[in-house]
Amino acid sequence: MNKGENEVIDPGFVARLAGFLGFDEERVQHLFEKNYLAKNWGKHDYLFRFDKEISRIERGTVLYEKGDSFEVIMGFPKIRRAMVLDPTLKKHFNGLEKVAVEEKMNGYNVRVANVKGDIVAITRSGYVCPYTTERANVKLNLKFFDDFPNLVLYGEMVGPDNPYVPKEIYGIESVEFYIFDIREKNSGNPLPLSGKKKILEEYGFLQVESFGEFPLQTAAEEIAEIIRELGKIEHEGVVIKDPDMVLAPLKYTSSQSNCSDLRHAFMFYNEAGRDFMLSRIVREGFQTVEWNENEAEFEKRYMQLGESILNPLRESIRRVKNGQRLYEEVRIRVRNPRTATEFENYLKRLGVDAIFEPPQPAGNEYLINIKKVNKSTNDKTQAIWEGELW
Amino acid sequence: MNKGENEVIDPGFVARLAGFLGFDEERVQHLFEKNYLAKNWGKHDYLFRFDKEISRIERGTVLYEKGDSFEVIMGFPKIRRAMVLDPTLKKHFNGLEKVAVEEKMNGYNVRVANVKGDIVAITRSGYVCPYTTERANVKLNLKFFDDFPNLVLYGEMVGPDNPYVPKEIYGIESVEFYIFDIREKNSGNPLPLSGKKKILEEYGFLQVESFGEFPLQTAAEEIAEIIRELGKIEHEGVVIKDPDMVLAPLKYTSSQSNCSDLRHAFMFYNEAGRDFMLSRIVREGFQTVEWNENEAEFEKRYMQLGESILNPLRESIRRVKNGQRLYEEVRIRVRNPRTATEFENYLKRLGVDAIFEPPQPAGNEYLINIKKVNKSTNDKTQAIWEGELW
Repeated sequence: MNKGENEVIDPGFVARLAGFLGFDEERVQHLFEKNYLAKNWGKHDYLFRFDKEISRIERGTVLYEKGDSFEVIMGFPKIRRAMVLDPTLKKHFNGLEKVAVEEKMNGYNVRVANVKGDIVAITRSGYVCPYTTERANVKLNLKFFDDFPNLVLYGEMVGPDNPYVPKEIYGIESVEFYIFDIREKNSGNPLPLSGKKKILEEYGFLQVESFGEFPLQTAAEEIAEIIRELGKIEHEGVVIKDPDMVLAPLKYTSSQSNCSDLRHAFMFYNEAGRDFMLSRIVREGFQTVEWNENEAEFEKRYMQLGESILNPLRESIRRVKNGQRLYEEVRIRVRNPRTATEFENYLKRLGVDAIFEPPQPAGNEYLINIKKVNKSTNDKTQAIWEGELW
Repeated sequence: MNKGENEVIDPGFVARLAGFLGFDEERVQHLFEKNYLAKNWGKHDYLFRFDKEISRIERGTVLYEKGDSFEVIMGFPKIRRAMVLDPTLKKHFNGLEKVAVEEKMNGYNVRVANVKGDIVAITRSGYVCPYTTERANVKLNLKFFDDFPNLVLYGEMVGPDNPYVPKEIYGIESVEFYIFDIREKNSGNPLPLSGKKKILEEYGFLQVESFGEFPLQTAAEEIAEIIRELGKIEHEGVVIKDPDMVLAPLKYTSSQSNCSDLRHAFMFYNEAGRDFMLSRIVREGFQTVEWNENEAEFEKRYMQLGESILNPLRESIRRVKNGQRLYEEVRIRVRNPRTATEFENYLKRLGVDAIFEPPQPAGNEYLINIKKVNKSTNDKTQAIWEGELW
């Protein structure tokens, strides 16, 4: 695995970057040595990403030289979670009259920006994904990036042809980009919701659903109702925002989303993080108490929880017992077969074990099935079936 | 918190101990400095314990000077787990014709030995517990320790007056000591099962239940049947042993025991280890596949799992919401009220936050209720109810 780090960085570049960031040169040098700041590879080798949060620069932030200065595309700000809606919303948004509620979609976070004339799609970690970049160029109205070279779209790639988080629940045929924020380069400042909406409409971008604005005093109740409805259609949850985007947003999710996370985690129980699993379970506990559920509702909830954990676990254990290997089947749809090759190399470079099947023509595009191998759970399960002790 | 470590150790003692262990003096000095080898306190300050496994000496092993040499009481050997019975038993006990199956009781591991003329109860970690020591002196036939000063009882303190793992399921009124192994001092060698049984019967000690010996070829099936029966009465599981005690034993547990562990863990979700929780859940997955359960059995299993997780979680979250503090209520029964005071100091020294209520006379003994406070889960839950973000 080689993510393109640890290359020798030109000392003149280090000096210029130090000047731009207001850091000592030594510190910048140190960031490179530790790979906290790392260089991209291939045709995007002018692009550097922060692999760790440094002095309030979010992890995943990228930068590159432009003219005699730099341009920065700030990372996705981490959205903190309300474990209970009341009193968390009142406390966090204290002073606001109203909060806005938008859907939190279940997809793959991506920033799309004009980087030195190219339209590139940058992942949450700060890599340029060749597949997402091709899709963004195919799907988005590119005029926006000419008209506003200083603005970045922050959105979610959603749909079944998303090789990271494939979802059928949104009724999307392939993939679409749903935008939730527009932010300025360098400062990372977001547009207020009204301004964001206006631009997104003007350029015909898809937006995450807006449920409107609610008085802070009654928002917890209203959001609980929205979450119940979203849960019924297996949607993930909401992001609650200050309409002016001055205070940081919060997120809150449905029980179905917790269970869906658990289903995936227990399918690959030796890969998934223990903290990831526990947090999803604990959310169920707070939600049932906050919503004051009766015994019938509670029973339904714990049955769903138990099923979401044990069913995928059983499935994986059975599959390995029957001699099959554990993998996730995902799919991409490309216009140019070279994009698939680039994406395959990209995943390899990131250490993802994936098997690409031959492209199948589909209209003027190609569908490619991919098996992402879950080696750790596979090997562990197989060893147990061969009599290894825990 | 002061566990009595980091005291200055007499250099002459270090030299003698180094000679006995066959280590360099420097290494012994280093073990003391790191607290890998630590001195007990109070009236048992002649006793040293290994706080870490060192050169195949198990963690919890204790030693002390006796005459011009040392005596060692080896720790509890870690018993490894069969995740599936077949082929694990055949592989692990390869070469044996039969394996013996004993009940694994759910209590508190304790070694009882004659240490320089005193009968002391030593915990799994190598501490002398004053409460367990008093109970051992009250409950056990002490003649054994005079007749066999070189033998150590390895057993389980079980029952409702066990302040570590209180259990009503065994129909014990207070606490009893169930012995599962007899081992020699120094070598740690166990008696073969036949010899162990003979001595335990002779001195009238309680023994863990023996289910008999089974041919290795059919043991997996027979044990599955025993486990199902044990599960029905909420008992924990079995230990499978080489009758000659040459090969290391294995353990295997019931679904009810996994669920019971989970109930306790999720009651105090911020205290319990993530690995602890996950391993219990994964065991359920392997058991349902190995036992080839039908959908009705599977549904029962995942409902129990869901309930075991979510019910205690709800209970704790509710209690904190209602302004109560989270604690475990346990109880001890002492002959001498001073034992309770000593036990209180002992828990304090180990960093356990416990509130002792006044002793209540009960026959010629005293009952003392103890609240063990679960500060971490309590504080986390309270903070969330006050609007703190996750």
